Amino acid sequence: MPREEFACCHRLRVRWAEVDMQKIVFNGHYLTYIDTAIADYWRAIGLPYPEGYVERYASDVFLRKATVEYLGSAHYEDELEVLCRASRLGRSSMTFLFEIWRGAADLLITAELVYVNAHPQAKTAVPLPEEFRQRVLAFERTAPAQ
Amino acid sequence: MPREEFACCHRLRVRWAEVDMQKIVFNGHYLTYIDTAIADYWRAIGLPYPEGYVERYASDVFLRKATVEYLGSAHYEDELEVLCRASRLGRSSMTFLFEIWRGAADLLITAELVYVNAHPQAKTAVPLPEEFRQRVLAFERTAPAQ
Amino acid sequence: MPREEFACCHRLRVRWAEVDMQKIVFNGHYLTYIDTAIADYWRAIGLPYPEGYVERYASDVFLRKATVEYLGSAHYEDELEVLCRASRLGRSSMTFLFEIWRGAADLLITAELVYVNAHPQAKTAVPLPEEFRQRVLAFERTAPAQ
Amino acid sequence: MPREEFACCHRLRVRWAEVDMQKIVFNGHYLTYIDTAIADYWRAIGLPYPEGYVERYASDVFLRKATVEYLGSAHYEDELEVLCRASRLGRSSMTFLFEIWRGAADLLITAELVYVNAHPQAKTAVPLPEEFRQRVLAFERTAPAQ
Repeated sequence: MPREEFACCHRLRVRWAEVDMQKIVFNGHYLTYIDTAIADYWRAIGLPYPEGYVERYASDVFLRKATVEYLGSAHYEDELEVLCRASRLGRSSMTFLFEIWRGAADLLITAELVYVNAHPQAKTAVPLPEEFRQRVLAFERTAPAQ
Repeated sequence: MPREEFACCHRLRVRWAEVDMQKIVFNGHYLTYIDTAIADYWRAIGLPYPEGYVERYASDVFLRKATVEYLGSAHYEDELEVLCRASRLGRSSMTFLFEIWRGAADLLITAELVYVNAHPQAKTAVPLPEEFRQRVLAFERTAPAQ
Repeated sequence: MPREEFACCHRLRVRWAEVDMQKIVFNGHYLTYIDTAIADYWRAIGLPYPEGYVERYASDVFLRKATVEYLGSAHYEDELEVLCRASRLGRSSMTFLFEIWRGAADLLITAELVYVNAHPQAKTAVPLPEEFRQRVLAFERTAPAQ
Repeated sequence: MPREEFACCHRLRVRWAEVDMQKIVFNGHYLTYIDTAIADYWRAIGLPYPEGYVERYASDVFLRKATVEYLGSAHYEDELEVLCRASRLGRSSMTFLFEIWRGAADLLITAELVYVNAHPQAKTAVPLPEEFRQRVLAFERTAPAQ
């Protein structure tokens, strides 16, 4: 996907504790990187999670499915860019796409995460807040599928 | 998938540091749980990773794709079972299936991980070692697809 | 300190994701091991944290100081024992001692952690609950200093 | 210690996965923050670890002791500064001091870490490389004790 399609970019440097004996970042840590990118996304649309979302809408966001493709390996001290965009806004679920790059040439990770908006305690699906939907549509460069 | 299909089971208790402010295990940590289950698998087939594999076969195993479905949430101190089996042995790739249970009733996670056997430095695909293949076939209760 | 002085012992196996490029457990993870040992301690005295403590006593426990000596290094798949005992019960603070062993011969870590009992929100020191104190005294083989 | 005494400052933002159910950063993660600060330090003196040190000097650096005082708690999304300086250069050991601040007013953590320079495999103490010593002395604003 063209880089311009991603309105949100989180930069980080790989930490020592994230690298394993294969001298590459342990596979689970990419989900931490992705999670920090999505925190940037919430902030960018003006709804910092959790106080800007959970308290405001009386609903919460739970991860339903993660698909991660490992195309290359990040190494200690690599400077990475985690690109993030909303690709689909359903009734109560939403899909985000991620790409993790090292420089302009090395695409290391592509990922798709599906979240569900739900009641914080009952964890039953609840429609996406209309204001949240509007903020995502205003922020994204190409509209997510609906 | 029936529990009997899984020849390998890793037990663990959720640690405090793995639980986030939503009071559930952070999504990336399930890949750590899965990784410890697969370490048990290597040991169970008599090829403890890495010394029983990387040095023996002059090849190494790299994760190519992970798909994780989050059906429920684990909480602090939950005792979990991570079930693990090989479901497909390709020429140089192999697929493992995982289920994470809390007790007999709560299936929290299903996951599929695809690994590629590759040259440790060049990281080019290398056929699965025949001995490894035989050990997997001897260990599994129903034969993986080939 | 003689091993018999430790009434509580937590066993664990080192995970792949905890080992770094020096092929030893990353230094911060020993505090995670220690934290899981102290969770066992709470359970052993019949006050599982947090519900058996925070809700029961309307106070919470915060770490004030940690001193960790690294005498040896744990490696991937090592089976470790984390020994834990209360060595001092002050008015509102308490001190725990830890030793992490690999087998009977290799003492890898000694640590001392000082906790303060405090109001959960205000975080001002509050006397240790008398019932908690009695349970610790009943559990320990040699009495903590007071 | 006056802030000007610290020649090295690492900035970071607290990640979701680092915060526990007490809504504060889990105590072990501060050692990860400190470790990333010291990586900055190596880079700042022109000896990026490990290739600029381990290969150059045929010795490696191992943590011997860590003392961490928890004065305050970091929260999700806090922007922190991890200050770092060498305070003592012994024959084969060295001591670093750290302070973790949130803004100019909240000192959350002070820490002292003692490292030993040692043979990478034998792990026996080896004198600090003279070039390393000179680089530290040139970098620090007030000379470390020797």
